[in-house]
Amino acid sequence: MISLADLQRRIETGELSPNAAIAQSHAAIEAREKEVHAFVRHDKSARAQASGPLRGIAVGIKDIIDTANMPTEMGSEIYRGWQPRSDAPVVMMLKRAGATIIGKTTTTAFASRDPTATLNPHNTGHSPGGSSSGSAAAVGAGMIPLALGTQTGGSVIRPAAYCGTAAIKPSFRMLPTVGVKCYSWALDTVGLFGARAEDLARGLLAMTGRSEFSGIVPAKAPRIGVVRQEFAGAVEPAAEQGLQAAIKAAERAGASVQAIDLPEAVHEAWRIHPIIQDFEAHRALAWEFSEHHDEIAPMLRASLDATVGLTPKEYDEARRIGRRGRRELGEVFEGVDVLLTYSAPGTAPAKALASTGDPRYNRLWTLMGNPCVNVPVLKVGGLPIGVQVIARFGNDAHALATAWFLEDALAKSG
Amino acid sequence: MISLADLQRRIETGELSPNAAIAQSHAAIEAREKEVHAFVRHDKSARAQASGPLRGIAVGIKDIIDTANMPTEMGSEIYRGWQPRSDAPVVMMLKRAGATIIGKTTTTAFASRDPTATLNPHNTGHSPGGSSSGSAAAVGAGMIPLALGTQTGGSVIRPAAYCGTAAIKPSFRMLPTVGVKCYSWALDTVGLFGARAEDLARGLLAMTGRSEFSGIVPAKAPRIGVVRQEFAGAVEPAAEQGLQAAIKAAERAGASVQAIDLPEAVHEAWRIHPIIQDFEAHRALAWEFSEHHDEIAPMLRASLDATVGLTPKEYDEARRIGRRGRRELGEVFEGVDVLLTYSAPGTAPAKALASTGDPRYNRLWTLMGNPCVNVPVLKVGGLPIGVQVIARFGNDAHALATAWFLEDALAKSG
Repeated sequence: MISLADLQRRIETGELSPNAAIAQSHAAIEAREKEVHAFVRHDKSARAQASGPLRGIAVGIKDIIDTANMPTEMGSEIYRGWQPRSDAPVVMMLKRAGATIIGKTTTTAFASRDPTATLNPHNTGHSPGGSSSGSAAAVGAGMIPLALGTQTGGSVIRPAAYCGTAAIKPSFRMLPTVGVKCYSWALDTVGLFGARAEDLARGLLAMTGRSEFSGIVPAKAPRIGVVRQEFAGAVEPAAEQGLQAAIKAAERAGASVQAIDLPEAVHEAWRIHPIIQDFEAHRALAWEFSEHHDEIAPMLRASLDATVGLTPKEYDEARRIGRRGRRELGEVFEGVDVLLTYSAPGTAPAKALASTGDPRYNRLWTLMGNPCVNVPVLKVGGLPIGVQVIARFGNDAHALATAWFLEDALAKSG
Repeated sequence: MISLADLQRRIETGELSPNAAIAQSHAAIEAREKEVHAFVRHDKSARAQASGPLRGIAVGIKDIIDTANMPTEMGSEIYRGWQPRSDAPVVMMLKRAGATIIGKTTTTAFASRDPTATLNPHNTGHSPGGSSSGSAAAVGAGMIPLALGTQTGGSVIRPAAYCGTAAIKPSFRMLPTVGVKCYSWALDTVGLFGARAEDLARGLLAMTGRSEFSGIVPAKAPRIGVVRQEFAGAVEPAAEQGLQAAIKAAERAGASVQAIDLPEAVHEAWRIHPIIQDFEAHRALAWEFSEHHDEIAPMLRASLDATVGLTPKEYDEARRIGRRGRRELGEVFEGVDVLLTYSAPGTAPAKALASTGDPRYNRLWTLMGNPCVNVPVLKVGGLPIGVQVIARFGNDAHALATAWFLEDALAKSG
């Protein structure tokens, strides 16, 4: 993978020119794309900007995020060739920081579940995960140092785990979702893919100008609460193997680790996530559902057809349960600095299964709004396994610092 | 004005056909539009739908709300002729309920402060208010029974007061803002203009299917807390005259009315509203600001230029103050059913002043997220004065029931 931090340091010292860094990504895309199919569009004319902290950084943008100079097709026939007027705010944040938008990456239709053509860069017989399939695969394949995705259930952390990249789903609404095709306004969250936690911190610093992302270093002796989310069902042995390897490495590196039971109100919040998601999707995609029903991708269409009867009363009750879960989860963080849990139920599903995998270990955290960072831990059968580090709402910098601690701990123990 | 409830009753009994009701609006637009200039586009081919609770109801849509069959120009040269792909969810809610979208109504550029060509239907020498100028004027002029607007500071309640219409700014996020041009994602709220509170209730019932809007009747003996928002500065005598008339009528009709002091934390929330609004506007309008700066309307451009230095730290602190204000405001509602306050500082400004009026009595409530309903009270110098009824968050039905009580009380005392 290409490290954003490494590129920045080499560009800073003059060892590498911004245009050479961009050329490296163009070449890597040429080399890997025909195998991985991560891009909807590759802008071969894209060049480096002359200034800004992200000069020389090639970024891929998930194709549900508006770009003024490239179509934005939502992974759907309905938007074939659709050209938005303006760049989404998150794209403008990157451009203003000096980044180069090198292309649009594949997305499942409207960021739902129907697989794209993208293949897992670690084994092309497997899925890269979804819905941010192209962004995870492009970073995991070493084509680009940074990509934007979105998560409504598990669409950033899960594909990152499957593709062996770092990724952050930041605190809800730290990054604006304006100009991002909406699925659920209470859940949709823009996230970043990169090689390591440090790269994500530098990306967020450049995009937001938030001082908390400046000077992040690995956390020291963090207090880690392990949650296995039993309410979400059982994991495959590979996922448990990954979690245990992470725990062992963290303990050796000085962390205090304890198992934590999440309060009942938090289990309940996990349970009602789909009600909020599906109720809002029916409103967000009302035009597509009414006017282009038969052109909607089949898995999404079936899901919308099945949830057409959700009522405002069920939705309001789900929102109340979500708020209660958020309050009680806040108390959990009084005893620990971060939580640690599975990023996915196992390794990436075989492509033949026509599945992007299951978001059941992610969806709670999207609803709660906490920052989550994927840390790649090991490979099982050639496919990556990751764990996610979850910090208190608003404490994205701490999630990144602890992920960095864990990366270092794993590197030492590996 | 045309009452939606009256139309529904006449259509229900067969006294009026849906197409005749739409034809009435076409004729009213033909008659008044050359004087009032409320519409960006009037779809003269629009016909009634055959079914649905809003069959025969002609609706005007503020021109920052996406429509699939009419351009959406945001009141700005930058979007001249811009044709969105899809209808915004709020437009789809209307269409599914049987409504007829009869045209797009004028908006100040990006729903900010630069006046449109629209004139006040009560006196064309005066402003209709903004930013939902066309929607307020079209309903106030009796052209259409229903219109959609949006409020970020005071852009629904203020123009409603100036144009003598009822209007509701519902609880934050009851109506989705997907497909509505964003100015501030923490504040933007879609609202409805109609002749009376009953009409708004019927509009919301049809759009949302929420049972709480079914069977609303005037509130009985409500406990009303009067807040004068002294922290927002002084009003003109006409506004105080309107508030006192409303208080007197309410007391005569059996309400208990008491003056209330809002907690200090709520004053503070009023103070920081512009920080949240302007910080988010710089992100929401980043593309326009960077790529089309000189084409941005002059008052908005000056406002953006002046607030370019707002920091994430100031914004985060403002958000914290907003949350504290919301908590403490919740306690105020333990002693009263609704609050009553000014809808605007006075009557509509003269057109020559090139002002859409001041949102200083509205912006607190937009930030707090509570439902607000404008009730027209009286006229001073031929121009309407309104008051706003504010209910607890989520209790939109109660705000409408109390507004209806007040309308009846004023009709009796008038």
